[in-house]
Parts: sequence; C-alpha cells; structure tokens
Amino acid sequence: MGDLSGYRGDALRFLLRVKASVGDVLEVQTAGGTLVGTLVPRYAYEDGEHVVLKLRTGYNVGLKVSGLREGRVLEKGEKPSFSSPAPPKPAKGLPRVLILGTGGTIASRVDYRTGAVHPAVSSAELHSLVPELSREADVHPEIMFDILSENMTPRHWTELAKRVARGVRERFDGVVITHGTDTLGYTAAALSFALAGIPIPVVMVGAQRSSDRPSSDAALNLVAAVSIAAGAEFAGVYVAMHLSEDDEGVAIHRGTRVRKNHTSRRDAFRSLGVPLAGVWRRGRIEEISEGLPQRKGRLRPRVRFDEKVVLLKSYPSMPADLVRGAKRHGAKAIVVEGTGLGHADAAVVRELGRFVRAGGLAFMTSQCLEGRVDLNVYATGRDLIKEGVVPLEDMLPETALVKAMWALGNSRTRERTVGLMEENVAGETTTRTFPD
Amino acid sequence: MGDLSGYRGDALRFLLRVKASVGDVLEVQTAGGTLVGTLVPRYAYEDGEHVVLKLRTGYNVGLKVSGLREGRVLEKGEKPSFSSPAPPKPAKGLPRVLILGTGGTIASRVDYRTGAVHPAVSSAELHSLVPELSREADVHPEIMFDILSENMTPRHWTELAKRVARGVRERFDGVVITHGTDTLGYTAAALSFALAGIPIPVVMVGAQRSSDRPSSDAALNLVAAVSIAAGAEFAGVYVAMHLSEDDEGVAIHRGTRVRKNHTSRRDAFRSLGVPLAGVWRRGRIEEISEGLPQRKGRLRPRVRFDEKVVLLKSYPSMPADLVRGAKRHGAKAIVVEGTGLGHADAAVVRELGRFVRAGGLAFMTSQCLEGRVDLNVYATGRDLIKEGVVPLEDMLPETALVKAMWALGNSRTRERTVGLMEENVAGETTTRTFPD
Repeated sequence: MGDLSGYRGDALRFLLRVKASVGDVLEVQTAGGTLVGTLVPRYAYEDGEHVVLKLRTGYNVGLKVSGLREGRVLEKGEKPSFSSPAPPKPAKGLPRVLILGTGGTIASRVDYRTGAVHPAVSSAELHSLVPELSREADVHPEIMFDILSENMTPRHWTELAKRVARGVRERFDGVVITHGTDTLGYTAAALSFALAGIPIPVVMVGAQRSSDRPSSDAALNLVAAVSIAAGAEFAGVYVAMHLSEDDEGVAIHRGTRVRKNHTSRRDAFRSLGVPLAGVWRRGRIEEISEGLPQRKGRLRPRVRFDEKVVLLKSYPSMPADLVRGAKRHGAKAIVVEGTGLGHADAAVVRELGRFVRAGGLAFMTSQCLEGRVDLNVYATGRDLIKEGVVPLEDMLPETALVKAMWALGNSRTRERTVGLMEENVAGETTTRTFPD
Repeated sequence: MGDLSGYRGDALRFLLRVKASVGDVLEVQTAGGTLVGTLVPRYAYEDGEHVVLKLRTGYNVGLKVSGLREGRVLEKGEKPSFSSPAPPKPAKGLPRVLILGTGGTIASRVDYRTGAVHPAVSSAELHSLVPELSREADVHPEIMFDILSENMTPRHWTELAKRVARGVRERFDGVVITHGTDTLGYTAAALSFALAGIPIPVVMVGAQRSSDRPSSDAALNLVAAVSIAAGAEFAGVYVAMHLSEDDEGVAIHRGTRVRKNHTSRRDAFRSLGVPLAGVWRRGRIEEISEGLPQRKGRLRPRVRFDEKVVLLKSYPSMPADLVRGAKRHGAKAIVVEGTGLGHADAAVVRELGRFVRAGGLAFMTSQCLEGRVDLNVYATGRDLIKEGVVPLEDMLPETALVKAMWALGNSRTRERTVGLMEENVAGETTTRTFPD
C-alpha cells in the first residue's frame, strides 16, 4: 500500500477502494465528466470528504468523493528521486547577492511525484533547481518566512526592511526577495519607502505558475532577478516579472508604480503611468529609464508602519457608514479610491470632513488607476479640498495605502505625516504634464 | 461695468480693482508665477475669497485673492453671440433615436465667452452643437437629470431603465444616454442587467474633455453613439468612447465589461478580458464581436436595485472590522475585491464566514481586474468556499457590485439571488479557458 498522506474518512476509503496512492495518475468520473490528474497529499483543508488532484493544467482541484461515481489508477507514481547535487563553486569575484525567501512558490523545490511544493532551504537546493544562478552571482539564500502572500502584514514589511538594511551593512551587492504574487506589489511599495535611498538594488520576484508546470515562469524570473541585483547600475526597489506571455524577457518595474493586473497571466505585473525601469533580456539590462537612483549614498532606513489606515473604494451609493466604521475601528488615516479625477458621493464627502475635523487624515486617489487626481476641476473636488482631503496626484491607491501606513509610522506630527505624503519619496508620483 | 456673476467679498473687490469682467482674459501674479486664463462666473463654491480662471489647458483653477500680487486684463471678453439656429429637417425614413441626458457635459451648450456649461435642452440646440446628427437619425433629446455623475445612485438607474423600456414601447430604433464619465461604467452595468434581452441598442456616451476644449471628444463620441443606436445590427447596452488619443474611431464596449481606466485620457475606457463589441469609424461599424445579442425578442425589464450591498477591497492587514461595519450598516451582500485569484487575509475570511452564517451573501472578485478568480488553487481560496463565499469567475468588481444590487432587488429568496449572480445575464462573465 502506497502513501495516502493526510487523507481520512470517506476520502481515504475511496482511495483505498480504487487502490490509489499519492503520486498516481487517477481518472475519476464526476457529474460533470471525466477528470484526470495526479493525486496530491492533503494539507490545509483536511476534511474527510475530498480528494485533491493536480490537473494537467497545473491547477489542483478538490473533489467531493460523494460526487464521484468511479475512479481508477491510470499510471502508478514513481518513487521520489530528488536529491541535491553539490552546488557549483561560484567563480571568484562574482557579485554577492542575498536571496530572501518569504513563502512564495518561486524558490521552491517541487516534488515532481506529488506536486507538493517545499521551500528551497539551502543554497545547494537552490542551485540544483536553477543552476544558471551560479553564473550570475555568489548567492546567499535565506528563508525569512513561509507564509501565504495574502497573510503578509506590515510587521513582515518591517522585518524584511531590517534584514535588507543589514544586507547593505554586510556589503551585499544586491538583494533578491522571492514573494507570492498576490501582495507582491504592496510589499514592493513598503520596501521602497522604508529603504528610500538604498545604495543597492532590491529586486522582488515571484512566479505566476509554480515550477512544476510546463509554462512556469519561476526559473527565468529568478535568474533575471539575481542578474539584476548583481549587475544593475541603478539602486532602489524593483519588481522583476515576465515581460510577456512568452520568455522573451523580464520587465523591471519600479516598486511604487507596479500592480498585479491579471490573476494568472505570466505578464500579470504592469507599470502604471511610467515606463518600465528597464528590461532584462538574455543577461543584459536594456531600455533603462532615465532618473533612476544610483548605487551611492548612505541608507537611513525608516522601517516602521502604522496599520491604522483604511482603504475605501468609492462607488454609486457607497454608504457614508463605511467612513464612520473606519473611524470606529480607530483608523488614523483613510485612503479613498475615488471615481474619475478623485470624486465621491456627496454624503461620503461630508463624512470625510467629519473624520478630518476629528483628527483623522484623508487622502484621495483614483480607482481609474491611470492618470492623476485633480480636485480643482469640478465642484465635488473643491468640496473635498474644503473638507481637508489631501489629493495624492497620480499615486496608485495601493501605494498610497502603504505610504500612509509608513508616513504615520515614521512621523510624530500631523504636519510631518502630510508632508511625507506630499513628498515624492521613491518615485511614487510623477510630475504633472497638461493633457492638451 | 461688466458682469461679475457670483463674486463677492474680497474676490469681488479684487476684480473691481483690476477692472475685470467675466469672460475677460486675465493675467495674475501668484506666489508660484504668472497665470493667464479667462475669468469664469462662480457657482458651486461660493466663498468671497477666490476668483476662478479657466486656463488654456481647459481646466478651471480657483485662486485665493489674498495670494494674488497683481492682476490685469489682457483682453476684453466678447459679448455672447450664441443663438440657436433652426434644426435641419431630418431626411424621411431615418431611424428614430431617443437621447436621454443625465447631466454629463457631452450634450451641453458651452458659452464660449465664460466657459460655463449648460445642458442642451432642445433638439434645436443639440443640432446646432452637432449638426452631423441630422444625417444619422431623427433624434429626440430629453433631459432626465442634471446631476454630477458621482452622485448617481441606483434610484437613477431605475428611472433610466424605465424610460428606456418605455422607449422600446414607443418604437425607437435605439437609445443614446449621455452621462458623466466618472460612474458611466457602473450605470452601463446596471442598465445591462435591468434591460437584459432588450431588442434595440442602448448606447451610453460621455466626454472626457468638455466641448469648449480644442481636444474635446464630445462631438465625435456623440455622433458615433447616435449612429450606432440608429444602425447597429446588434442590441444590448454599450458604451461608446474614443478608441485612442486621436480621432481615428470610437470603441464600442459591452456594458458589463467596461471600465474607466484613466482619469483624463480621451481613450480612458477599456474593455477588460473581452474584445471590443465593435469599432465605429466614419459612419461604419467594424470588427463586430461574435455572439452579441440581436435586435429581436421581447423585453421584460427588471428595474429594481437594492442598495444594501457593500464593496470592500482587500489589502495587507485589512481589518476584519470593515466586514463587521458592513454588517452593522445592514448590508445584505458584500462584494470583495480580493488579491490575486480571490484571496483575503485569514481574519477577514473568518469574518466573512460569520457574515454569511448570519444570513448575508458574500461574493469574491479580483482587484487584478483582468483574469478569473479561482478559489480551488490555494488553501485560502478553499477556506473562502468553506465559509460560503461565492466566486464570480471573471466578473469585474464594479459590475459584480451593481449586479448584486440588481439580483437582490429582483429576487425573493437567497437561492434565487445566488442563482442570478451565477448566471451569465448580460455578458458579464466569459467561459473559462485554461491558461496552459
């Protein structure tokens, strides 16, 4: 009898009946038709009613066994054969790159038998996964967290920022941070502010498809990130992800202007309102933007974040109650994703005014995501200004949220917080050009 | 002495001193430099401290007179010379198009002297503004509301839907709705659901730049909208807006898949996740999508909306308090804009479960905007399903919000509401294709 890790109850009984083990390719009859996939061990969602198959598309599906009419093993799984070869010795004089793992799947060791993903914990394992790395840099991997990207919090941002700052003191030439893609953009913005002025590149990288899938972007993205961290002439915080659906290159995005704009495409990340910082192609960095920070200066990290900021998106008949709710929650600042140039329903505008008069801060961005808020064009905008709402130019709403947490965490007075919000700290706003 | 409408206090004294009248081109010295613009009358924001100039860029700026060092009149304004010519007689047999105005600037008569914008209230005025209309259709303009687009509510959607349904009974060949661009996408979604199955085209149209600006998109968009409403072979609710920054054509978007993606560009509106329904160029509709509804069938309008729906955008350390706040507000449904494939912080997931167990409905969309939610891939998604959160495929968050209001308004049981949400009523979801 083979491995049935994590299965119990009806699910276990079903698997025993069809003589399946983890790693086997299984065919099952569901109400909706026939499905074929590899049986995966169970971890997070451990009822006794579901079996989990990894489909050929790479996605896992949980199937309720009570709905399965039949099942049979098409192919027995092979025994795991993974073992780590010794890492190649890095050539002398290569740049030193610190790689920090936070729990994304990119720097993971995939058990090809079961599809289960384990973090690559050692330099040896990392090299065995992506041997090309040894050509790019002398890499030093370190696992910092192993959490789901949607559970990343400002406390994790602080820890990461501190570790990167220590990396600068340890004279690393660059830092790579592997991260789940869901909240990668938020973390990139957080580090951009916390580490503004950093004299080395910090390259955040993720994968939209895990490394066991034929279309995985993990290896190319990671090689590019290490290469950029090692060799780029510019410094600062960036995101390196696929440029397009094929493997032609890796886009380098500024940490404050990047957004995950698609749930699953490999080129899901986009720079909004600015050109890419550059493009990595076959080991070279091309199309480098003007005005990027250079590898110089002394870092003075400001790593604190105050979580008491609420992001509210405006919409027709949005209840002013949401503003009151934020206040009750103890929010010190509210970032609004207004419509168009930065507008909201009249009742919401009045409630924001009350929030500001009670000592809160309110900032306006646009849910259009591209373009700039302008509160001087229409009456609603002027009312917002009158109520004390501060417009944030063309800052992305997500970046504005993160920046407000950072500004509150690193200032003692209201004036200083607003001053930080209005200052262009890390390329989060661009200079206005008139459209006509 | 000329006209100084709306000015009082210091502002009036300043204008009298520099001998300016409304309509004059004025040069003023501010702390930030010299500004030149046309003096505009005051309406909405009537303190006595500001003068308002319309700059050459087309934007109005309010300037505090206490900060003005000097001012002088460069050029006296001309007397207004606008008068309505008689509308041309429409050629016999032209399609009949109903044009409903809601307060957007597009169908407005602009006083070129002052820059003030008035709704075009009569057929005569509309023709005098855009004489090309008479070639396209026998148009019947009607002003329904004169409100700011950010103050549009579900009650307005209901009124509009009822009026359009009456237009169908009145045997109009098509309907055009002029609308401010801020919330145009929300209204388009609302009408798509309320009027699903409508046998004529309903074309919503706006302008990103008012008609007095050299770069205005108002005339081209309006001509295209009328032409589409009159002549398109397809039926349903669409949005017609500039295809690109130049005047090459007008994009036709499906009402449930369109979004304002830029604060100010003329091609701000984009269809997400689907091709355009078509493109209007020089009077012809080209590149028509397959599978659009046809001009047939009998309309059974479902025009009610229930406002008790809250849209929440998920982000790192989003407080579960926001879910509790929505509940306290009396929300019957919450639409979440999750991260990535549809995720949220673990505490938020648990609170959504409590909301559902207390009788609420929770729906999941993605803040990525493009791509599809999938709650089967990761543990967080499976937890969301376990808590009773309903995933909405690739429905846009804004469309999902509007649809939830509509589904609640037009169903009596929870099952029926969820059933409507999961049904593809008006092209709001597309069929899944696997990415690999």
